[in-house]
This record gives sequence, C-alpha cells and structure tokens, in this order.
Amino acid sequence: MSSLEPVLIAGEWRAAQDPAGSFSAVDPSTRTPLPALFPVSSQEDITRALRAATEAVSALDGIGPENIARFLEDYAARIEADADALVDLAARETGLPAAPRLRQVELPRTTNQLRQGAAAARDRSWSRATIDSKAGIRSVYGPLHGPVVVFGPNNFPFAFNSVAGGDFVAAIAAGNPVIGKANPGHPGTSRRLATCALQAVRAAGLPPAMVQLIYHTPPEVGLRLVSHPSVGATGFTGSKRAGLQLKAAADQAGKPIYLELSSINPIFVLPAALEERGTAIAQELFASCAMGAGQFCTSPGITVVLDGERGRAFVAELGALFGKGSSGTLLGAAGVSGIARAVAELTGAGAEILTGGHPVEGGGYAFASTLLRASGDAFLASPGALQTEAFGTVNLVVLARDVAQMAEIASHLEGSLTGSVYSESRGKDDGAYNRVATALRPRVGRLLNDKMPTGVAVSPAMNHGGPYPATGHPGFTAVGIPASLLRFAALRCYDNVRPHRLPAELHDQNPTGKMWRLIDGEWSQRDVVPIVG
Amino acid sequence: MSSLEPVLIAGEWRAAQDPAGSFSAVDPSTRTPLPALFPVSSQEDITRALRAATEAVSALDGIGPENIARFLEDYAARIEADADALVDLAARETGLPAAPRLRQVELPRTTNQLRQGAAAARDRSWSRATIDSKAGIRSVYGPLHGPVVVFGPNNFPFAFNSVAGGDFVAAIAAGNPVIGKANPGHPGTSRRLATCALQAVRAAGLPPAMVQLIYHTPPEVGLRLVSHPSVGATGFTGSKRAGLQLKAAADQAGKPIYLELSSINPIFVLPAALEERGTAIAQELFASCAMGAGQFCTSPGITVVLDGERGRAFVAELGALFGKGSSGTLLGAAGVSGIARAVAELTGAGAEILTGGHPVEGGGYAFASTLLRASGDAFLASPGALQTEAFGTVNLVVLARDVAQMAEIASHLEGSLTGSVYSESRGKDDGAYNRVATALRPRVGRLLNDKMPTGVAVSPAMNHGGPYPATGHPGFTAVGIPASLLRFAALRCYDNVRPHRLPAELHDQNPTGKMWRLIDGEWSQRDVVPIVG
Repeated sequence: MSSLEPVLIAGEWRAAQDPAGSFSAVDPSTRTPLPALFPVSSQEDITRALRAATEAVSALDGIGPENIARFLEDYAARIEADADALVDLAARETGLPAAPRLRQVELPRTTNQLRQGAAAARDRSWSRATIDSKAGIRSVYGPLHGPVVVFGPNNFPFAFNSVAGGDFVAAIAAGNPVIGKANPGHPGTSRRLATCALQAVRAAGLPPAMVQLIYHTPPEVGLRLVSHPSVGATGFTGSKRAGLQLKAAADQAGKPIYLELSSINPIFVLPAALEERGTAIAQELFASCAMGAGQFCTSPGITVVLDGERGRAFVAELGALFGKGSSGTLLGAAGVSGIARAVAELTGAGAEILTGGHPVEGGGYAFASTLLRASGDAFLASPGALQTEAFGTVNLVVLARDVAQMAEIASHLEGSLTGSVYSESRGKDDGAYNRVATALRPRVGRLLNDKMPTGVAVSPAMNHGGPYPATGHPGFTAVGIPASLLRFAALRCYDNVRPHRLPAELHDQNPTGKMWRLIDGEWSQRDVVPIVG
Repeated sequence: MSSLEPVLIAGEWRAAQDPAGSFSAVDPSTRTPLPALFPVSSQEDITRALRAATEAVSALDGIGPENIARFLEDYAARIEADADALVDLAARETGLPAAPRLRQVELPRTTNQLRQGAAAARDRSWSRATIDSKAGIRSVYGPLHGPVVVFGPNNFPFAFNSVAGGDFVAAIAAGNPVIGKANPGHPGTSRRLATCALQAVRAAGLPPAMVQLIYHTPPEVGLRLVSHPSVGATGFTGSKRAGLQLKAAADQAGKPIYLELSSINPIFVLPAALEERGTAIAQELFASCAMGAGQFCTSPGITVVLDGERGRAFVAELGALFGKGSSGTLLGAAGVSGIARAVAELTGAGAEILTGGHPVEGGGYAFASTLLRASGDAFLASPGALQTEAFGTVNLVVLARDVAQMAEIASHLEGSLTGSVYSESRGKDDGAYNRVATALRPRVGRLLNDKMPTGVAVSPAMNHGGPYPATGHPGFTAVGIPASLLRFAALRCYDNVRPHRLPAELHDQNPTGKMWRLIDGEWSQRDVVPIVG
C-alpha cells in the first residue's frame, strides 16, 4: 500500500492527522482504481485548517487587492504551464475527454475565470461602494472575516474545482481565504491544482493559508466545518442530499451557505416552432442532453411539446437520436446507479421508456442514452416524481394537450437554473409564448429563447442561480464576475468615520481612477467633491 | 364583550375565520387593557391570505412600477391626513410620547420612507439591470413571485410597522404583495394604517390583496406561514427567540428570511478621548441609552473604557445620570420582566449594579434606568452572558486593563448592528483606534466614530444590518433605500430573449431616460447602442 497523499494546511503539504480512512479515485473509463491514496480527514485536519485560515484572515487586513489580483493571474499562468499534466490526470480521474472538453474548453474557461477574478479585484467596482456625502455615511462590501469553504462537484474538475473554480475565484477575489474540500472523484487533479496555487500564493505574498485543501471527510466532520463559528460562508455544488444536510447545519449556525443543487432545465417547444423547425430542434436538444454525457447542471431533463402528429414525429426523431447516440463515459459508479434510480422513479410515476433505460455493461461506466415519454395529464398527476433529476443523457418528453396545459405544466415546475422556450421565427407563437413564459419566468434563474441552456457564458449579466431547490437563494449567481463575488462579502458601513480611517474604496479620491461608485445617487468614476459653503 | 376587530384579507375587512383566541392591547402608561378586541388568526385566515396574495402576484405581472409608486405616495399622504388619530392611538397602545417622538419624528420618517420607496420604484435603478450586449445576456432583479410576510416589532409602531414600515416599503417597492403580521402590542395602530393602505391600494389600481393584515397567530401557524410554498420571503424584526424559530422553519423550506434580532451595540471610549471629553461623552451616552426608554435596536448596551482614575470618574458621572434619569414607560409588561431577566443574567455573570436594577412600581410599566459595571477580566471570563441584551435603559460599563484588553474584548463580541469608537480629536488615540477598530469592524454592520448609534438615517449608504446573530445575513440592510429592496427580489436573467419580450428595464432604450444600468461593464443612464458592423 502506498502512503497517503498529503493535505494542504497552513501553507504546507502535511500528512493528514489521524485520518478517518483513505480512498482512491477510480478511472471511470476502465473502472479501475488509480494508484494514489488520499486521506479522509478527521476533525484534527479541520481544526488545523480553520486555525490557519483565521490567521490568514487577520494577515489579509494589511494586504490589498493588487496582491490578490497578482495571485489569481499567476495561478492562471501556472495552470497553463502545467496544462498537459493536469488534463491528463483529470481525464483519467473523471473519464471526461482530454480534448476538446478538458484542454480546449474547460481549462481555458478556468484560467479565464481566474483572470476575470483578478480584474474584478483590481477594479474594485464589485464592492458597490456607496457614498452619501451629505450624511457622512459610506458603505462597501468587504470580506467575510472568515474562510470560505468550497465543496467542488464531480462534473467540472477544473472550472468548478474547490481550489480553482468559480466559487474559489469569487471567494478569493472578494478577499477571503479558501478551504477547499475536493470532490473525491478527482483528488489528484485537485492536489495538482493546489500545488500551482500554493506556488502562486507564495509568489504573491499572500498569507500561506490563503488556499488550503482537504479531499474528503466523514459526513459529521463536513457538517461541523460549515457551521464552525470561525467560518465565513460555504459554497457547495453537488448533490441535493448532501447539500441540504450541509445547509441545515450552516443555517442553524447562522452561517451563509450557497448551494447549487439540482435542476431539471425544462425546454418548451411551442407549436409553430415545432412545425417550422422541429427536426433541427430535436438535433439541438439531443446534442445538449448528450453534452458531457448529460452531466451538466444545465442539462435539459424535460421537454414539453404539443401532442399531435408533429409532436409525435418530434418524439420519434428524438428517439432515433437517443437510440443511436453513444452515451459516453460517466464520472463514476454512483452515476450509473443514480441514473438507474432516477429512471425507475420516472417510470414508477408513469413515464414510458422509448429508448435506453439500462446501464451499459463492459468498458467504462455508462448508461444508455434514455428518452422517456409521458402525457401532460400524467405529468400534472405526479409533477414531483416526474421532475426527478437523472444526471446523465436522459430526457422526458411531455406531450401536452394544448398550450394551456403547457402553461399549466410550467406552473408546476420546481425551481431550476434555466428554462428555454423555442418559438416560431416570425412571431406566430407569441401568444403561446406569453402564457408559457409567464408561468416559467419565476421558476428559473435564466430564461432562454431558441437556445439550449448548456452553454454558461461567464458574463457579468449571467445568472447561474435560481429559485430553491435549484439553489438556496434566488438573489445570487454562482457564475458571472463580478456579481458572484457578492455571495462572499459582508456589507460594511462607516458612519461619521474620520476620512483617513476609511478603506480606500470609500476615500474621497477614487482609488483607481476608474472604480464605479454610487455617489449621492449617481454611479460614477469620479472623486467625491467636498461640499463647499 | 365587544366583537372582534376584522382582519384584512383579499381587499376586504372580514371577520377572522375560526379564530384561535382574542387579545387586546394594553395602555402601558396605565397598565389597563384597551377596549378593542383583536383575533388570534388560525390557519384558515393564513390560507385565505396566501391564496389572495398568490392571485395578486399574478395580477401584478401586468402592472408597472408607476402604479406602485403612486400607491406609496398616496398612502403617505393618507397617513399624514390621519396623523392626529394615528398618533393618538399609537401613543395609547405603546406608551411612546405622542410628541415629539411619534408626531414629529417617527411619523414623518415613515412617510418619508414610503416616498423614498415610491421614488425607487419609479427610478428602477434599484433593480441593477445588467446588460451584456455582445453575449445577448441581460439580467435584472424582479419580484419574488410570492408575497412577503412582514413581522413588525413592538418598538416602532409606524416606522417598522408590518403594513407601513421599512420592510413593507421595500417589499412593495420591489413589486411584491405584503402579508403583514402586526405586532400584538399595537394592533389598533396597524389596523388604522391598513385602512389608509387599502384606500390607497384601490386608488392606485393595485390588486386588492396587495396589502393584507392579521394581528396575531399561535406559534405553529406563524411557522407554517413563513415556510409555505407560495411565500416569497419573510422580513422579521423582533425577539431573538421568536426570530430563530421562524428562521428554522423558513430555512428548512428553502424560503429566504431576513431577521433583525438583537444587538448589543458596543461603545468604545479610547483613553485620550476620555481625558479630552469624558463628561460630554457620558452625557451623550446616557441620552442615547435613554432614547425611547432604551427600546431601540441600536441602543448601546455595553461601554468599554480603560480602568483608572478617569475611567472610574466616567462611571461615576454615568451613574449619576442613570440614577436621576427618568426611566420612561416601557412598551409592555414583557418589557419589564425581560429587563429583569437580562439584568439577573448580567449580575449572575459577575456584573455589579451601580444604580437601578429594579422595576418601578406604580404608574406605567417601567424599570429603573440601570448602570452595571464589570472588569475586563470578568467580561472575558463570561463574554456570552455579559452580552445579554436588556431591552431598556441599561448599560454595562466594562473597565479594561489596557488597550490590548479593549481590543481583546472587541474580538469577543457577537455580531451587532453597530459599534462606536470615540477617539481624541487630534489623533492621540489613533494607535489605539487601529487595534480596537480592527477587531470591532467585522463584528458590526455599521462602524461609527464619535457618534452614538441610535440615529438611523434613511440613507442609500446606511447599513442597518450586520453579522449573525444581529441579523440572518451579513450582506443585506433593512434600512436604506434602494438597497433594502434587494432582500425581496430575485435575479432574473434573459439569454437570447427576443427584444420585445424583455422587461422594460432591459430594453435597448432606457425606460425612464434616467435609470442606472450596468451596460457592458459601465454604469450609465444611456440607451444600449446596437453594435453596427
């Protein structure tokens, strides 16, 4: 047995203290364990990490955004320099294709996020400095004064990694240290990323505990971590079950926790659009469902069309695509059993399997691409069970009786990250659109027209969020800089505070010459002009 | 026995259905019940109110901010027209002085808040429209698609009233209907305000259930209300015990809840400031502690000074002021017993009563103004118990050994709404300030210099919020328009949505010509200029 890989605590790679166990990643394409053994951290590691993070919080008081920005940029460059090895390792641990997925798409997105975070930290406009010059009151968002714990999901080893992804960038750019809890699916990738991060932390002169990493914990240790008095907040992306347990613990302790849990991402294809370009939409839908072997948070899980000749032809076209499409390698054995459970739940509630519906034996972990069908009446009879998320290439087509029933179905959807409506190009569907979109709008974070939801642009206008249970709060986004930083920030107000004691963001003089501030009701990049007279 | 006062549900004053009981307000200045009898609502009223509110949410889809603004302005005018009767009733129900407190201060603040809410709704800048013109992604904050439940506190019958105060204004201005749960201390005032509100709702053409009112519920009905699937969010201002019970229920249901619970509002007087103007600070402190008979969320509960000759003189000066100051009438019998319990907790943890410490018999509900003292060592030995909030004119002076111990005390404080530091005018205390303020800053929402916290300006830069347990989330403020609206809003993103289907806030053309929007990274009031190329 090889020795256990070290955890990263207080700026040093150290042996886990009294580990509660060990585990290794499994290569999903061969179903064989990889050689490296990683520790399951016990409370001792958590205690050490929290203590070091608390020291880092104090040390950060004297360190400005420039060092943080330099760290993020340097980290991005080190990831790029190590890209070949990182991609190779991530591909082995996750079964995701090295190219183009990891090398050409996810890794560049990850370094882009790090650089956007650097730009946001340097620009400072994210902090929404608000100045009431007459009343002498000024406020600004600042760090939480406690580390942010980031739980990374299994499906994006880079872009949502606990020590490199979106939550990480947002927490660091807002000025908080991060304690990363790696996803146990790709501990080696996380360790390799953290190695780059630690080098960048040192080079930028940040506190050594700015980035810490553990790989796994027993459940009760995770609950204690997110509810610990010295924690600032938690960002979690993963399963609903684990997320809700963490949420309960954090809520009870009064600690903010941001969750990205599950999302069914409904697609509505309106009648005239179906007539106009049903075949093209079926192809687009299948491609979106199959992307990443269906293991995207924004993967479409349910499609609603009108019953009738064209609707049934659409289902047949989809069925042909799902039937011949390769299902792709899943992230792990749990993925296979999870999809099987979800499909059983769907069929138990009345959905009929049109194609797929079974694991694929031999080779890597896989589940046949699966298309199911249910009537609108059946959906409305069991709207809960028929919204069971299957984290794979699985789609349930609901054949609605009429547009009114399509709207009724929309009004029974749980909160999702996204919802898409396809309508006819020249406006024939506008009446139907109004009815469906009115019901759909409040149930999704991002409403799309004529577009599948699986592309999540890192745009300041993006909302990768949505109503519960897609996330834990309808007002925040996990993707999109600088808005995502606000999750990991506290509003700090200064009332009658002497000018030289204000943080730079609230000085009369604009600290960068370009920072956007809300001064006396106007957003501007100017200095505060002292009132004379 | 007089008949029960009606509740306001679905735009009508109706008899409570199967009430769980009845109650009447008590005139605190005479300890005698007032004649009007109010119902304790059972689940039936809640169910009816939620159903009506859900209809109002749908109806609001077609109603713009102009109607909401007109409603808020008209409501303010109606309150002013009814001011004499409102003040008279509120004074009887709360024991607060009709003048200047209710008539000259709180009522104008309330109507001012309503008008600021109207201006914010009309201006629309609060919604933080964000446009990425290249990516075709646009997002904006909008209503929650469910009513906001507002629990009003006992201490501000107008400015925090569940159907007229800050949370009410914020929820309405953001486009949500409100279900007000009156504070049972002033049900008549709440009914009278709701009467004005209903007239204004009708005049403005808003849905009849835009404002609903119940007075009281059994605890389990309140828990069901805040966790009901069709509720948007809850705003609660009141006791920590009740607030945390509601929070647990709302959290479990995934419903946002904003709490304003308890706050000790520490005052630090640095050594040279004490030498320079200790007597004046003692007077200022006493005035702040005695304001509203100490029943302000921002009332100072603890004062930290250096032990020594000047510190002890300061305590003596304070003692004289507390000893001769009239304690004022408290809001109710529970106030008297609550203060007695808190003082017993403080003395049990080692604090010594210097003056007061007992209820005042005869006349209205009252508790003698109470000054306590403890050493810095004693405080650090029992920091939890010695931060017990006494909701009255009660202050604990902690005599610290040195500045290091002052900072150590600051670092043991729980989250508060405010924290004040008094320092010498010309900078002699700057070193001490750095140590104390560094520890204090992350523990308070609003940091003040040379100023008592009891004035809460309704400024866009205000933060009436702070870390748990002062509130439930460190990123939101309950006072300060437009920021307070964001608590009751969801982030709605539009991806590739056809231009004519976007909400007005996201059209290329600025909907008001003045609305601030974040367009391609720049805050501006301009239209979006189509990219030509």
